[in-house]
Amino acid sequence: MQPMSEDGLVRSDAGWFDTARRRRIGLPEAIYAPGKAETDLVALIEQSLASGEPTIVTRVERELAERLVDRFDLRPYPALERRAPMVALAGNPVPSSSLERVGLVGILAAGTSDRPVAAEAACVIETLGHRTRFVLDCGVAALARSVRAMEEVADADVVVVVAGFEGALASVVGGSMAQPLIAVPTSTGYGAARGGETALWAMLATCAQGVCVVGVDNGFGAGCAAVRIVGAAGRNA
Amino acid sequence: MQPMSEDGLVRSDAGWFDTARRRRIGLPEAIYAPGKAETDLVALIEQSLASGEPTIVTRVERELAERLVDRFDLRPYPALERRAPMVALAGNPVPSSSLERVGLVGILAAGTSDRPVAAEAACVIETLGHRTRFVLDCGVAALARSVRAMEEVADADVVVVVAGFEGALASVVGGSMAQPLIAVPTSTGYGAARGGETALWAMLATCAQGVCVVGVDNGFGAGCAAVRIVGAAGRNA
Amino acid sequence: MQPMSEDGLVRSDAGWFDTARRRRIGLPEAIYAPGKAETDLVALIEQSLASGEPTIVTRVERELAERLVDRFDLRPYPALERRAPMVALAGNPVPSSSLERVGLVGILAAGTSDRPVAAEAACVIETLGHRTRFVLDCGVAALARSVRAMEEVADADVVVVVAGFEGALASVVGGSMAQPLIAVPTSTGYGAARGGETALWAMLATCAQGVCVVGVDNGFGAGCAAVRIVGAAGRNA
Amino acid sequence: MQPMSEDGLVRSDAGWFDTARRRRIGLPEAIYAPGKAETDLVALIEQSLASGEPTIVTRVERELAERLVDRFDLRPYPALERRAPMVALAGNPVPSSSLERVGLVGILAAGTSDRPVAAEAACVIETLGHRTRFVLDCGVAALARSVRAMEEVADADVVVVVAGFEGALASVVGGSMAQPLIAVPTSTGYGAARGGETALWAMLATCAQGVCVVGVDNGFGAGCAAVRIVGAAGRNA
Amino acid sequence: MQPMSEDGLVRSDAGWFDTARRRRIGLPEAIYAPGKAETDLVALIEQSLASGEPTIVTRVERELAERLVDRFDLRPYPALERRAPMVALAGNPVPSSSLERVGLVGILAAGTSDRPVAAEAACVIETLGHRTRFVLDCGVAALARSVRAMEEVADADVVVVVAGFEGALASVVGGSMAQPLIAVPTSTGYGAARGGETALWAMLATCAQGVCVVGVDNGFGAGCAAVRIVGAAGRNA
Amino acid sequence: MQPMSEDGLVRSDAGWFDTARRRRIGLPEAIYAPGKAETDLVALIEQSLASGEPTIVTRVERELAERLVDRFDLRPYPALERRAPMVALAGNPVPSSSLERVGLVGILAAGTSDRPVAAEAACVIETLGHRTRFVLDCGVAALARSVRAMEEVADADVVVVVAGFEGALASVVGGSMAQPLIAVPTSTGYGAARGGETALWAMLATCAQGVCVVGVDNGFGAGCAAVRIVGAAGRNA
Amino acid sequence: MQPMSEDGLVRSDAGWFDTARRRRIGLPEAIYAPGKAETDLVALIEQSLASGEPTIVTRVERELAERLVDRFDLRPYPALERRAPMVALAGNPVPSSSLERVGLVGILAAGTSDRPVAAEAACVIETLGHRTRFVLDCGVAALARSVRAMEEVADADVVVVVAGFEGALASVVGGSMAQPLIAVPTSTGYGAARGGETALWAMLATCAQGVCVVGVDNGFGAGCAAVRIVGAAGRNA
Amino acid sequence: MQPMSEDGLVRSDAGWFDTARRRRIGLPEAIYAPGKAETDLVALIEQSLASGEPTIVTRVERELAERLVDRFDLRPYPALERRAPMVALAGNPVPSSSLERVGLVGILAAGTSDRPVAAEAACVIETLGHRTRFVLDCGVAALARSVRAMEEVADADVVVVVAGFEGALASVVGGSMAQPLIAVPTSTGYGAARGGETALWAMLATCAQGVCVVGVDNGFGAGCAAVRIVGAAGRNA
Repeated sequence: MQPMSEDGLVRSDAGWFDTARRRRIGLPEAIYAPGKAETDLVALIEQSLASGEPTIVTRVERELAERLVDRFDLRPYPALERRAPMVALAGNPVPSSSLERVGLVGILAAGTSDRPVAAEAACVIETLGHRTRFVLDCGVAALARSVRAMEEVADADVVVVVAGFEGALASVVGGSMAQPLIAVPTSTGYGAARGGETALWAMLATCAQGVCVVGVDNGFGAGCAAVRIVGAAGRNA
Repeated sequence: MQPMSEDGLVRSDAGWFDTARRRRIGLPEAIYAPGKAETDLVALIEQSLASGEPTIVTRVERELAERLVDRFDLRPYPALERRAPMVALAGNPVPSSSLERVGLVGILAAGTSDRPVAAEAACVIETLGHRTRFVLDCGVAALARSVRAMEEVADADVVVVVAGFEGALASVVGGSMAQPLIAVPTSTGYGAARGGETALWAMLATCAQGVCVVGVDNGFGAGCAAVRIVGAAGRNA
Repeated sequence: MQPMSEDGLVRSDAGWFDTARRRRIGLPEAIYAPGKAETDLVALIEQSLASGEPTIVTRVERELAERLVDRFDLRPYPALERRAPMVALAGNPVPSSSLERVGLVGILAAGTSDRPVAAEAACVIETLGHRTRFVLDCGVAALARSVRAMEEVADADVVVVVAGFEGALASVVGGSMAQPLIAVPTSTGYGAARGGETALWAMLATCAQGVCVVGVDNGFGAGCAAVRIVGAAGRNA
Repeated sequence: MQPMSEDGLVRSDAGWFDTARRRRIGLPEAIYAPGKAETDLVALIEQSLASGEPTIVTRVERELAERLVDRFDLRPYPALERRAPMVALAGNPVPSSSLERVGLVGILAAGTSDRPVAAEAACVIETLGHRTRFVLDCGVAALARSVRAMEEVADADVVVVVAGFEGALASVVGGSMAQPLIAVPTSTGYGAARGGETALWAMLATCAQGVCVVGVDNGFGAGCAAVRIVGAAGRNA
Repeated sequence: MQPMSEDGLVRSDAGWFDTARRRRIGLPEAIYAPGKAETDLVALIEQSLASGEPTIVTRVERELAERLVDRFDLRPYPALERRAPMVALAGNPVPSSSLERVGLVGILAAGTSDRPVAAEAACVIETLGHRTRFVLDCGVAALARSVRAMEEVADADVVVVVAGFEGALASVVGGSMAQPLIAVPTSTGYGAARGGETALWAMLATCAQGVCVVGVDNGFGAGCAAVRIVGAAGRNA
Repeated sequence: MQPMSEDGLVRSDAGWFDTARRRRIGLPEAIYAPGKAETDLVALIEQSLASGEPTIVTRVERELAERLVDRFDLRPYPALERRAPMVALAGNPVPSSSLERVGLVGILAAGTSDRPVAAEAACVIETLGHRTRFVLDCGVAALARSVRAMEEVADADVVVVVAGFEGALASVVGGSMAQPLIAVPTSTGYGAARGGETALWAMLATCAQGVCVVGVDNGFGAGCAAVRIVGAAGRNA
Repeated sequence: MQPMSEDGLVRSDAGWFDTARRRRIGLPEAIYAPGKAETDLVALIEQSLASGEPTIVTRVERELAERLVDRFDLRPYPALERRAPMVALAGNPVPSSSLERVGLVGILAAGTSDRPVAAEAACVIETLGHRTRFVLDCGVAALARSVRAMEEVADADVVVVVAGFEGALASVVGGSMAQPLIAVPTSTGYGAARGGETALWAMLATCAQGVCVVGVDNGFGAGCAAVRIVGAAGRNA
Repeated sequence: MQPMSEDGLVRSDAGWFDTARRRRIGLPEAIYAPGKAETDLVALIEQSLASGEPTIVTRVERELAERLVDRFDLRPYPALERRAPMVALAGNPVPSSSLERVGLVGILAAGTSDRPVAAEAACVIETLGHRTRFVLDCGVAALARSVRAMEEVADADVVVVVAGFEGALASVVGGSMAQPLIAVPTSTGYGAARGGETALWAMLATCAQGVCVVGVDNGFGAGCAAVRIVGAAGRNA
């Protein structure tokens, strides 16, 4: 490995690796898989695992994910038997025992197609040492499902709502729960869903107060935002 | 008045007045006020009232509406003491007693700012002889309000949902009630509401089944669609 | 099968199945095929057929549809010899004899490419026990076709207009017929059709009164809206 | 006046005046009023009238138009008693007797609000020496009106269709008449008309063959295109 | 073949074939190939050729086009050795000798990638009996090319400009030539060309007078518009 | 006042007032001023102040704000001498001494024009009993300002970044600080700022990890989101 | 004045004034007038003039500009007798004699309405000590004008092209001249100009090589970019 | 080869080759590979190499690039071992020794995925005889990287910033460096990056002064713009 500079940047032929990121912002640099050749991806994972930092690889196609799980000690999100087309992989998880306070993040996914995005959020949160509680398929088309799901995560520190179509679950949860609420629009839906843009705008325009939003299908970003919040709670305890 | 042709069209300097429209599609030609000079508007209202057909004037600015109400026997929607900036006016209402069957349309408005649009729908429905039941301020930011509102219109033939922001009320109603459901996006809201476009897309993309949608702030169109439905029920009785 | 809870929700590993939906809103939960693995789809169809509820599977690729039709007692819309790339499948249809009143829905498709979307609407309507009458290729480029098509569905309770390009058929029908009218924009057309968005906006902005609209290619939603209307007529009879 | 250069350009403090334009393309340079101070506008009109070229001023606010008509020998389109908020003005018309062949342009306006745009087209066509025949209020909401309007312009050389909302009149005319057809979307309409963009896209995506389109409210452009066509017919006669 | 009705519509299982279209609007119904199965396409071509009407098939993939040319007496545009990915095919051409007047249409294509769209326009024009003159690669990046191209089509009755990127050729031609001018934006270009939408808007907003526009890549529509114009010239001669 | 129902909803002619909202989600119902008549606004403020709940009125025009401050015991954000065109008003603040834990929210505003939006956030946070620290004019055009601003809020529990133009400050802060980070795009900027949409998209697409976003100019929403977070930290302490 | 810190930032109640900016990037901080109260604007101008740095105030309404010119020693662009609605003001110009090399920037404005934007660019360039040569009204609708304009600025170091509508002048200049070329889209034009967005996209998509673009009406940005280039030439001389 | 005309245009069956372009604007005509058959591409490269002009082929797929590099004496950008999916190829480079002054262009790429676009810019600049200095992976998510990168190119004549996501690197560089700055948005990023459109708008709206922008992924255009600038510096030296 190249010598590390004072500010924690390690320069290689593939650019600068930012080893100081978790010390600085509480979150490690992650590896985004799309567009990378498999050999490059393998090299980046080796470099990251060797650094001892938590290692997160996002949006890995399932077949490639299977090969990488075979080769490295990585955990897939969602589990490979779920047959999701895209998987997030995690290594070097932070042990919960090392944290001042372990947070609990409730993750509500409106439909079954939202699972991979919700799993990406869970990957980040759990790899950083916190706990998640996951409720699938609780969209407002059957309001009783939404109400039950909110009861199941009533003790969470943060709630992440993952929804496509018109994303109305975020509004219902935002009007009913007091927790910090991160809404993730997904690209599921058809007819007028426009690849998630409809849910994105709807979540930004929600009549519920204090809902904040990340980009379409950005489970990774939602997980990072949740970790910032539960981490802050830990620091302040 | 100019002689009427075989197909019910009356030609004047201001164009063709379609006196046969209600016979043809069950709905009268209406007068859209914006952009018309007051003298032209007065002439058109006189022509329409004289024809004996139900007369509907939409989007009249409040001061002008007050003058027109003083001059003609017209009913304002909403009532003038509500101080809405835009008012719909109605004359020559169809007597309910003349209908085979009088329908009941439930109108749910998510917020108080949605009242003028909801009132425009009520104007059309009542002027054509049907009844409305109106519930204001029942958006999902307080879900208990939405649930109570649905109970209040449980016996309606058709439900019209009027909502701005992200329009989530349409999804909650659509997942809970069996009636024909017409969703009207409104231009209320801010931040990301984009003049009603966000609610429009969200209503079109709703996860609830069988919701149909009209244009932004188009209470007139929603009222017409509701009349088509309750009229059809009447024909089939 | 998992025990059903009081509110009719059946929880499985794949989420919550809403067996109470038809009792609640008159429409069953449907299965959206895209993105689901074949084994998962087979399991969902088995679960739905076993529940005794009408079973609708939408947007099945033709080869897969052929395998599913071979395996289950499902009816394809459109019929498989039509070679449509996407097919809707239906099982457990509601017998018309069980309904208080069987409605008739006229379905007008502007061009031959609009057939699969129109067929998806027919699938929902017929599976719920109502009748359809279908006229293909009646767009306004040859106005005589449009006029003849309207004559053919003059006795329908509801009219569904399916059109791509600029969707002008909806305006012509809306100005000529009194029935409730549901317009479905389709993604057919080129040059400026923008995947159906042009027809969607045009149908929402139509000069005809009381036309309501569903999302692009959303034949399923149009069918559901039609069932809400003819169902309401049944209840009121 | 500044000396004219070889290529017909006259340079003044206000830029270059292109006196050779009509010789080159058959159409004179026009004066676009919005944003110009009244004194500047007066100077430009004087310069243009003095050149002997046909003089066209577009989008003049009505009060200003009245003053300019009082001052110069200009003809307003539409006539000032029509109370349109915007008026086109014409001077130095080309005498029809000077043309090899005088063309006839049919102008169909879907609604009364489309009149000012239609009048702008008429202004250009008549000022260049050709004839127009104008039919107002013939939109497809009453199809009988559209059919009668087409009969009234059956002998035209070119047809200009002016329509807002969803612009369906262009499709109906395009499918029924053989003439060159120029469609002008207007900014009339509400709900989903988006300032004319809906009609623009719909006209571009029309299922009718060989319709061509100019920008929103661009009656001037449509008039110019019509003159190019009837002028070409003249040249070829 | 099914018996033809009074209005010229022939009904088959595949919809209504409009045999009266050329008598009505001077242009035959065309066959749009994308999305059609090869067997269906073959049947439609047979039906059209048998009707004796000019037969035009648009957007045929090159391999399929080769098979169809082998099977039927069809002419490909562009010629097959040009290797264009999409080809238009024509049969039953109208003999020029049958026309009152044979028009000449100049077709200017800004870049070599615009050739298939330009060829589609040529296909329509020549199949209807008129002549074309074609200049390739005359975009404004080398203004001398544009000037020479205009000289080459100086005697045309109509000019069709085909251009992608920012479509500036249409403005330069529109400011320099007097002919009727039809601008066709194409989907060529990158960076900010947005699949032709940039050129479309630019052509609609051109500072040149009387340019009219068809949809993106719509060479067919441009050809039809040109035929309407040269046909009109013929009628008036 | 109308009798309060079990679920805390108070029904009046102006709709339902949700007195239980703060108990439910930790945030009171607020009053959005635009579009409301002054008499209605006064009545709503009286009702809210009388309920004893914290009272927040957003987007009050400055002259009206001055009158309301004279009449009621309300605090303006920003202070009236700042001459902002829009002001938020607060009454019945929650005493900090009543909270389990008083949070500190850093608010960074990129430019001076962003002050009113930043002040709206401060209004919510302080009225709910928490503290704010405000740094104005620290956009990245002078990176030294941004760095100093981050140092000034290094001990905050949450950081709110308010920025227009391209919103790059959110990315720089997100890459440098570990706190929960709420980004508020504003409608300041020109040329390509598109009323805040550019900053909104840029903040959603930021390369920094775990930044979440609210709607354009939605300082109120950002304040609410911050309160959810510092409130959660309080609950967990 | 507040004490200046090491990095040149002067903090006041109105934010941080960046006195080091010209030393750092060669360009002074400017004052953007819209939305600022006149008293604030006067204070900011006094502060800037006192600092000795070049002072630029952009987008000042004409009446206000007249008062400010009366009060301070500021130069208006364009000159006040041009009656532009918006004016840029400059004080403390950099003497050309202080520069290593004085550059010449050609500024071509397509239409007379583009003058204020072009003048804003000239304001920046001249205030920083460089020369401009300005040609007005040279759009491609009369190509001879464009060609003559290019000849007039043939010896410039940089060319700025200012154009609305479809912005084709940038393409013609880019294909004909070798200089660095900065294109400024303006909000002039109608029909399809969409407030400058059409010209913006067209300039970005130009077929000419190496044209670069700033935001709509951003004459200030174009002037700054030109100064960066001629300044660089100076440094390298 | 066809005889060359006076203005340097060589006409072939594939259009006009503009051999005079470099003499005219300092930049050669380039070959855009997408959509061209391999045989056509080979012929064009042969023609260009034979002309003696610098030869640039852009957006060549990697496998094809390998074959072309084997066949001709072309240099790939980036080098083939980098495994980029798209490669630019260069032949006939201009020797630096032939230039009056050799410029240095700093190229900063925010992320590793931006390398191919950055390499395309480098290809143009180096092939025209100038030097580049390249820094990869210096986005603002780790601000220390951005600062170090700026130090590395402090002596450049021009800086090209290549960035996807929200493109904030352009703002940071623009606020810190005095050089001419060309920003290239790339299509990298997800969630809300919209294929580069987010970065494009953000760069156009940047708060930094005098940044100019080319289209998405248009490394070629940025390289050309840089050459125009360093070439101008050469001419002025």
